[in-house]
Amino acid sequence: MGSSNRPLLACTMGDPAGIGPEVLVKAFASAPLHEWCRPLVVGDAHCLEQVVHSLDAASRLVVRSVNEPDDGVYGPGVLDVIDLANVSSNVRAGELSAEAGAAAMAYVLRALDLARAGEVAGIVTAPINKEATQLAGYKDMGHMELFGRVLNAPEQATMLVSGKLRTVHLSTHYSLREALDRITRERVLSRIQLADHHFRSWGLAQPRIAVSAINPHGGEGGHLGREEIEEIGPAVEAARAAGIAATGPLPADSVFVRAMRGEFDAVVAMFHDQGHIPVKVHGFEESVSVALGLPIVRTSVDHGTAFDIAGQGIADPTSTIEAIRTAAQICAGTWLAQA
Amino acid sequence: MGSSNRPLLACTMGDPAGIGPEVLVKAFASAPLHEWCRPLVVGDAHCLEQVVHSLDAASRLVVRSVNEPDDGVYGPGVLDVIDLANVSSNVRAGELSAEAGAAAMAYVLRALDLARAGEVAGIVTAPINKEATQLAGYKDMGHMELFGRVLNAPEQATMLVSGKLRTVHLSTHYSLREALDRITRERVLSRIQLADHHFRSWGLAQPRIAVSAINPHGGEGGHLGREEIEEIGPAVEAARAAGIAATGPLPADSVFVRAMRGEFDAVVAMFHDQGHIPVKVHGFEESVSVALGLPIVRTSVDHGTAFDIAGQGIADPTSTIEAIRTAAQICAGTWLAQA
Repeated sequence: MGSSNRPLLACTMGDPAGIGPEVLVKAFASAPLHEWCRPLVVGDAHCLEQVVHSLDAASRLVVRSVNEPDDGVYGPGVLDVIDLANVSSNVRAGELSAEAGAAAMAYVLRALDLARAGEVAGIVTAPINKEATQLAGYKDMGHMELFGRVLNAPEQATMLVSGKLRTVHLSTHYSLREALDRITRERVLSRIQLADHHFRSWGLAQPRIAVSAINPHGGEGGHLGREEIEEIGPAVEAARAAGIAATGPLPADSVFVRAMRGEFDAVVAMFHDQGHIPVKVHGFEESVSVALGLPIVRTSVDHGTAFDIAGQGIADPTSTIEAIRTAAQICAGTWLAQA
Repeated sequence: MGSSNRPLLACTMGDPAGIGPEVLVKAFASAPLHEWCRPLVVGDAHCLEQVVHSLDAASRLVVRSVNEPDDGVYGPGVLDVIDLANVSSNVRAGELSAEAGAAAMAYVLRALDLARAGEVAGIVTAPINKEATQLAGYKDMGHMELFGRVLNAPEQATMLVSGKLRTVHLSTHYSLREALDRITRERVLSRIQLADHHFRSWGLAQPRIAVSAINPHGGEGGHLGREEIEEIGPAVEAARAAGIAATGPLPADSVFVRAMRGEFDAVVAMFHDQGHIPVKVHGFEESVSVALGLPIVRTSVDHGTAFDIAGQGIADPTSTIEAIRTAAQICAGTWLAQA
């Protein structure tokens, strides 16, 4: 359990009015996070202490403020936090506010500073709320946009993971009609290449990348839609010509099942719900998000701020625990070996 | 195990060159079909006997030709079949042919005759192959079209079932772009009503019908698409005004998980893959199809002819067994009680 072997991860607290502080505290109190990594929360110490007390976890968890990553103890029973002290008593669980939105963004920006300075190996993000960050003056700015801008990474992709099922999204936050228009040879090829690149960097010599169709039965040879013939198929062929073990387009109602069984390392899904539905059905609480296309490691919980249940003590920390475990394994180079 | 208590089901053999004969024989040889119903195969006796011998099941299964449903014995170790004797030695496993396509259609037509005459309580269909039936002269004619035409049922819907997850499809065999155009208030309301009607007929006083959104996060209040606001939402409201316990539109990446957990009796899915992906991921082999909108009970296996593995003895009979069990329970009025 030497410090040097365990990657240092910045874990943002998320919107203080959401379930972020609660799932973080529960993760620290219930999972052996310190065996996997040195987890450094970036958040508000007072807010976290309140959660610790409300959950009756004070006997087994101490919130400890640190100024620098090197100051952390990173041991059992300790939650090391870089305290931005930016949450006043005006912020209430479950209530949307500009203050909470601004606070949440500040945690992410500080974590990004630490990553750019090489002080942390990766970032794990708790949920922020887009309405709250808009109130705070950030327009159309989620984690993905912020990371892309700060790290100068214009081509990111969201990968959802649940067990052996890993879905890489061609697009995420577009209407389904817009998402259909974005299915072009160039974009599909680019996503296949991005997935291949990352899986190679994680140690696979020849990643097996499946590509999903969008029309019923994969389009039935053009009878039920032509995107497979005109866009997706040629992209897969181009990828294969470039030495990538790409397969597809495969009917969407079987490709994810085949991946679950270990036949593929990843499936490129053509739109948000196509990749989200199978991952959530396969393992709702366990699913985590891994960002592709960034120069740093970033994982994320796979749920939102859940204002409707914030402050009630009933939020499930499983996705948080899995997001921290996954980031730690990716940083340590052991992720796919352990999957 | 008196005949009078067990519903009589016509089980079509499907395309003789596909896996239909094999999964039927395996179902008879491995599951207590006779405890659930009186299963009467409509097919080719010689073809079935060949399968019995190739599977080395002759010691425990006798293929017995009957002329009328009343002639069957419907007991363990017996496969009663109305023998249409329409498969010559030219038909080979895994090979597409007009003869096999014509034979498969003949089984369905005979089963429909039996159902219309009131001689069977329901029909369970094995897979047919559209290319083969086209070679045989049937244009654009699958089971659904055939049942609709013969039974004068213009508004059918396909419901897929796996455990507690039941998805009712707004449309099935259309390209995704066409499927999007078919999402109208009228159609969505009609599907909700159809689902409600059937679940009431199966004994539920107030069926809980969820309706899925199509855009990410359910459209985020119109930011990511407007179908939820303009079409799906008003249909749900109209259904509620008519006394139906409809809920939605709900984000597609959570509604199916909620249904799996028992929160809803059925989910109306907006297109083919949206309803197919979660059912297949939830329980691939177990999933069966139940036809809504017909004056008779019809269930179906949830796979195709699988020419690529036909004749190899490796086809999985689970869906066939579940399709027969489900039809038997629906006919007996015990389906949802046992789900």
